[in-house]
Amino acid sequence: MNYKIIGRFLAQILTVEGVFMVPAAVICIVNNEIPALHGFLWSLLIICAVVLVLFLTCRKAESRFYAKEGLVCVGISWIVMGLLGCLPFFISGEIPNYLDALFEIVSGFTTTGASILPEVESLSRGILYWRSFSHWLGGMGVLVFLLAIVPAGGRGNGYTMHILRAESPGPNVGKLVPKMKDTAKILYLMYILLTVLNIVFLLIGRMPAFDAVCTALGTAGTGGFGIRNDSIASYSPYLQNVCTVFMLLFGVNFSCYYLLLMKQFKSVFKDEELRMYMGVVLGSVVLIVWNLKDYYSTFGETVRHVSFQVASIITTTGFATTDFDQWPSFSKAILLCLMVIGACAGSTGGGLKCGRALLLLKSLRRNIRKVLHPQKVQIVRNNGQMVNEKILDNTNAYLAAYVVIVLLSFILISLDGFSITTNISAVFACFNNIGPGFDAVGPTCNFGSYSAFSKLILIGDMLAGRLEIFPILILFSRSTWIRR
Amino acid sequence: MNYKIIGRFLAQILTVEGVFMVPAAVICIVNNEIPALHGFLWSLLIICAVVLVLFLTCRKAESRFYAKEGLVCVGISWIVMGLLGCLPFFISGEIPNYLDALFEIVSGFTTTGASILPEVESLSRGILYWRSFSHWLGGMGVLVFLLAIVPAGGRGNGYTMHILRAESPGPNVGKLVPKMKDTAKILYLMYILLTVLNIVFLLIGRMPAFDAVCTALGTAGTGGFGIRNDSIASYSPYLQNVCTVFMLLFGVNFSCYYLLLMKQFKSVFKDEELRMYMGVVLGSVVLIVWNLKDYYSTFGETVRHVSFQVASIITTTGFATTDFDQWPSFSKAILLCLMVIGACAGSTGGGLKCGRALLLLKSLRRNIRKVLHPQKVQIVRNNGQMVNEKILDNTNAYLAAYVVIVLLSFILISLDGFSITTNISAVFACFNNIGPGFDAVGPTCNFGSYSAFSKLILIGDMLAGRLEIFPILILFSRSTWIRR
Repeated sequence: MNYKIIGRFLAQILTVEGVFMVPAAVICIVNNEIPALHGFLWSLLIICAVVLVLFLTCRKAESRFYAKEGLVCVGISWIVMGLLGCLPFFISGEIPNYLDALFEIVSGFTTTGASILPEVESLSRGILYWRSFSHWLGGMGVLVFLLAIVPAGGRGNGYTMHILRAESPGPNVGKLVPKMKDTAKILYLMYILLTVLNIVFLLIGRMPAFDAVCTALGTAGTGGFGIRNDSIASYSPYLQNVCTVFMLLFGVNFSCYYLLLMKQFKSVFKDEELRMYMGVVLGSVVLIVWNLKDYYSTFGETVRHVSFQVASIITTTGFATTDFDQWPSFSKAILLCLMVIGACAGSTGGGLKCGRALLLLKSLRRNIRKVLHPQKVQIVRNNGQMVNEKILDNTNAYLAAYVVIVLLSFILISLDGFSITTNISAVFACFNNIGPGFDAVGPTCNFGSYSAFSKLILIGDMLAGRLEIFPILILFSRSTWIRR
Repeated sequence: MNYKIIGRFLAQILTVEGVFMVPAAVICIVNNEIPALHGFLWSLLIICAVVLVLFLTCRKAESRFYAKEGLVCVGISWIVMGLLGCLPFFISGEIPNYLDALFEIVSGFTTTGASILPEVESLSRGILYWRSFSHWLGGMGVLVFLLAIVPAGGRGNGYTMHILRAESPGPNVGKLVPKMKDTAKILYLMYILLTVLNIVFLLIGRMPAFDAVCTALGTAGTGGFGIRNDSIASYSPYLQNVCTVFMLLFGVNFSCYYLLLMKQFKSVFKDEELRMYMGVVLGSVVLIVWNLKDYYSTFGETVRHVSFQVASIITTTGFATTDFDQWPSFSKAILLCLMVIGACAGSTGGGLKCGRALLLLKSLRRNIRKVLHPQKVQIVRNNGQMVNEKILDNTNAYLAAYVVIVLLSFILISLDGFSITTNISAVFACFNNIGPGFDAVGPTCNFGSYSAFSKLILIGDMLAGRLEIFPILILFSRSTWIRR
């Protein structure tokens, strides 16, 4: 394990985190929020100190950097980012318990949007901004951001590749362009562009500027922290519809947008994952609308609420316009399954990912065929191309790890004595980075009543879910820490 | 697809089913239960007619018999056995709805033990016996029984192998002796021996003879149909403990008993699956006893109830001595996970199976190692021997199919509007062949309130669970039905 290079990396990431805290501090100054400002300034001071120590101790790093270093680097970075990123909440006193503050910021960075706060409208604007911004930064990945802006310094493509692979969601990270660094740049440019578009459309609907920025940041990262106690419910139908559309857009694989920019419309149209994603969304909306019947006064209202909630859950955003915990069981069951499926690979959304679900289904079909025709060689195709067996292996391993982690977490948080529905949906909501679950963690409730122990478990779930398990899992493997 | 050989097979299986109905009819005569007797006699008549038609139409069968035919044969046999086996319930009028009767007998044959009956003490003895006997027959597998008694007729070892593989639970069916036919015989002999031992121990505890036979049949098949409304709760502590021990014994891989008979104690002691099974049982008992604290009046009573319930759930039997739905969440969460894990492969129990869980964990560990050391060749070992990659592939495919089926069934039965906990645990309880779930399908409740549609889904789940998915799944594949 090449510790020093990881230390250097960490220092750079914390620098980025610190720089991004500055706008939040400025917002505090503009709004004359003194305790919050104190929180940000002290946090910046601490981050500076840590960065300094890291730079000094890890000056002479070897350039040895493999997949292992990439995974560990991503895992550790995210943990440390959380530990320091929550300081403003804690120091400002707006979340007086450190563990709660940690839960909140990890929920932010992992774009989960699960909150321990019973209400958010009393928070200062600086803190609200930082909360929403954490979604944006975590959505596309802070390490990807780093790769896009920092010169590679002769460390080459492989280096960038390992990081990008470890931090980006999905079974297979595609290069958009030959150089990974340029891929990272393009990704962030498209991300910024879409976010700005989102803000513009919200402003057109007369949402206040501050609300529009925060909501767009939360939408872009498919996070879900709102700045009002009732999430998006009190905004106009137009604004809710804008959110629906943009949540769905941010759940699409970003390489599709790149292909659109390159005018390769055909390959976007034929993309199997995108088709599945749209099919699942449409199907779920139709089924739930049918199931709800006369639940809302008009058909239009039903469609609006249903499409909003479906978009919010499948993209793992977690905004809400209505208390879907009150919906009938069938609708809730569909939502629970959407939680598991999740958005497209290569988007900012969480969950298993449509692409991975598709691969699992295809390899399942392959296995049935193998039983029927043992002599035939069976290959799995995706968008017409043969899928590497290694990717299939990894996808299956991912599912196994998923099941194990979900069951273990479920048992452990059950110690707190909440209902089975609460606990299962809490684990799903955290692990798949959604936010709200059902019952005692439903859209009108929060995670504050869980014990400190359970909160720690759920923090781990959020991190494991966002980073797709392995960067967190290998931190627990002894052989990771052996010096070669 | 070789239809004729399947028809012939079906005829033989129905003959077996018919022959085994005779003792039930005799019990009706002894107890002077006329409507039930009518039920059995008419059922026998119908079965005879079907057998006759099958024998006549499928006289000249080719001997072509591959894995595909084996799977289809098992899948169809079980469905038809259910369709005809439920006739006594229906014709006698004791279960006046045909679908309910089908649910009940499929629940019997698949050793699930889920019932649609609110109370069973009003049933006639003949019907009660047939209900419990269906567990015994389904536990080890009726096709395995057939193989053990019918002369192979020159069809050879491969033929028997395909059937045994398709009907026996577990990721890898081991031959005990070179000839599969002898393996089937040995399995059934051990099964009968253990069942008799169970009856003897129950009789020693002064259980009435009829109760002892029915209870032992239900225990042997890890089924769970009781003959009292409160399952095993009203029997003495001694009898409850006998049940606990025998449930656990029937959850052990039968090849372990064969090894014991061959005096190979060392390899039994070192068997990794057995160790995991015992470890999980002990661990669960300790944790739940700790969690229940002062729930029961004495420590001894707590241990008795907990070990009974743990044994009942992990072996997927489904007997109960207490209403575990009232236990605290942590205990219930453990039970829910035990439902998923299940007993040992090669036992009469259901679920994922300890052996398969072990393989999944090992292949997961392998994949983590692969990430850390991409150059090294990593193999998975079981009991010191290398595991074939094909088995690992199948195990992973099994998990994927498991998840897909559970989610789909969960969505579909949610249409009835019961709670999420009820629906999830109903699917788990049926798919893993356990019986009782939680909430509205808890140990004191029954499945009678589900709609006809949901009952059909759950019947499918029970069959898919007992036959480990593929024999049922390939019935839905178009290429299964194409004549070569």
